[in-house]
Amino acid sequence: MAVYTDISDEALECFLADYAIGPPLAFKGIAEGVENSNYFLATEHGRYILTIYERRVAETDLPFFLRLMDHLASKGFACPTPVHARDGAALRRLANKPAAIVTFVDGMSLTRPRPDQCHDLGRTLASLHDAGLDFPMKRKNALGPQAWSALWAGLRTKADTLSPGLANEIDAAINAVADWPKDLPTGVIHADLFPDNVFFLEGKVTACIDFYFACTDLLAYDIAVCLNAWCFETDGSYNLTKGQALIAGYNGVRPITPDERAALPLLARGAALRFFLTRLADWGPVAPGALVRPKDPMEYARKLAFHARSRGTADYGFAPTPANR
Amino acid sequence: MAVYTDISDEALECFLADYAIGPPLAFKGIAEGVENSNYFLATEHGRYILTIYERRVAETDLPFFLRLMDHLASKGFACPTPVHARDGAALRRLANKPAAIVTFVDGMSLTRPRPDQCHDLGRTLASLHDAGLDFPMKRKNALGPQAWSALWAGLRTKADTLSPGLANEIDAAINAVADWPKDLPTGVIHADLFPDNVFFLEGKVTACIDFYFACTDLLAYDIAVCLNAWCFETDGSYNLTKGQALIAGYNGVRPITPDERAALPLLARGAALRFFLTRLADWGPVAPGALVRPKDPMEYARKLAFHARSRGTADYGFAPTPANR
Repeated sequence: MAVYTDISDEALECFLADYAIGPPLAFKGIAEGVENSNYFLATEHGRYILTIYERRVAETDLPFFLRLMDHLASKGFACPTPVHARDGAALRRLANKPAAIVTFVDGMSLTRPRPDQCHDLGRTLASLHDAGLDFPMKRKNALGPQAWSALWAGLRTKADTLSPGLANEIDAAINAVADWPKDLPTGVIHADLFPDNVFFLEGKVTACIDFYFACTDLLAYDIAVCLNAWCFETDGSYNLTKGQALIAGYNGVRPITPDERAALPLLARGAALRFFLTRLADWGPVAPGALVRPKDPMEYARKLAFHARSRGTADYGFAPTPANR
Repeated sequence: MAVYTDISDEALECFLADYAIGPPLAFKGIAEGVENSNYFLATEHGRYILTIYERRVAETDLPFFLRLMDHLASKGFACPTPVHARDGAALRRLANKPAAIVTFVDGMSLTRPRPDQCHDLGRTLASLHDAGLDFPMKRKNALGPQAWSALWAGLRTKADTLSPGLANEIDAAINAVADWPKDLPTGVIHADLFPDNVFFLEGKVTACIDFYFACTDLLAYDIAVCLNAWCFETDGSYNLTKGQALIAGYNGVRPITPDERAALPLLARGAALRFFLTRLADWGPVAPGALVRPKDPMEYARKLAFHARSRGTADYGFAPTPANR
């Protein structure tokens, strides 16, 4: 949750004068998003989310994110749609920071996704990948495997303080992902499609939000991120039924290739490593005035331990094949 | 800003099943209120605020606050109206804590109120006092003058750490308010009608919110709270034009009695002391996971210094009378 920037009523009114959505009727900071400040905005034209991009988001990346939402929405993919100002720009400035308005989407994120909802999430993820295929912009994954060794370099002691012996396990994961696949299908991935970024109504996905980690990378890596985020129980165990459901949902829209399937255990280990490392970097005493509760890195250490032990794709919910039976 | 309690989608759906407003379409924690957790809630029936009452609010006081909002709304005073569940209760439980739903009111709070808006605030405050006259419930002001000495007892060192010599000034204020008026008109007061608790649209008040300090006390004390909260500039100076406007607005709806006017400098000093003391108590390093930025007690120390220096009611914007010319 986060609201890092105070916006005066006067500043908001000036800002909105450049749009064609009318003056503000209501404006409230909302406890959503960790990287940015988000506000609920109502005008006579409708409901919106106004986002102010704080320091953790590179301003040069913002056109990618906003045009991606425009692109996906134009393809019928359910996501917030950027509202363009009278000058045509979706990206503007407020309080001397980059800012944008997107449409408000109904729905609520799930606390404990059920298998049928994991199935729907799989379908949604594949639809996102399909809709992104002809998106012309590219963005490198700044938190991809090439970044992990450097991220890890300064964190070894912190890891062992958190849990003695953990550093050796992370070393093993770092070594394992050195053999990262290179020839799998690539495209736009969300890269952060956790349950809090997917809204549901009556059990069905209504929208995906928060495209601020989206990038051009292996499509199957996005599946790996989702298997980690959606298919583990709070006790650290992998729920095979949910894994099967997510994979089946995805396969029904965009079939997972044999190479992707074979790579998924390693991709899942890498995806767990990525979230472990960034959570570990953010972990620690909270500074005065901090508004974000850091997320527990140990949740991802437990997922890494599962991946280190796994014997093949069947452990994730793939149907056995002669190769991994 | 504050959201202290995580509400699962399942818990929310169960909770709302006891109301006649339909299932949730959207639900977001909002950065509003310091004492409680507040959520924006949308259903097919409309927009609402769901509040979960956290530990700082006494559960036994909640019926007073909710019935007061019902009472004021029934009198045409613009404030959120409690939504009653099918069993007729406005106060229910969610996540094992007291919880209530009120209607969402449009409008935005002002960052820098203008004199005409201070005038409108004065009118609104007097309307609130009038509307509350026949409210049958009573609630003692838990943060009234009888509480200040005890509050101050443990804070002397902290005050001098904040600003050397400050403790002596507070002692002087504590001594001054020993002569607190007793025979002024009493009734329901808001007791916390700061600019962030008053919504405006197109320059006019649309609603007052956050009645969780409301109590039965001297009506003029509420004026004193507002003079402190609305009529000082950020540089610590009192804006006489705003003070005159607020007083004139109030007087136009409910005339301030001569005794009230005579008492106002002391009431304003006491009101500044009350907010200084509670801010000082809350001031300090923020605990890990804290979601509220403490408010600066020094803002109120500066207001106390103004009151200590003031020579009479004319300093606050009252028209000179023979007695205080």
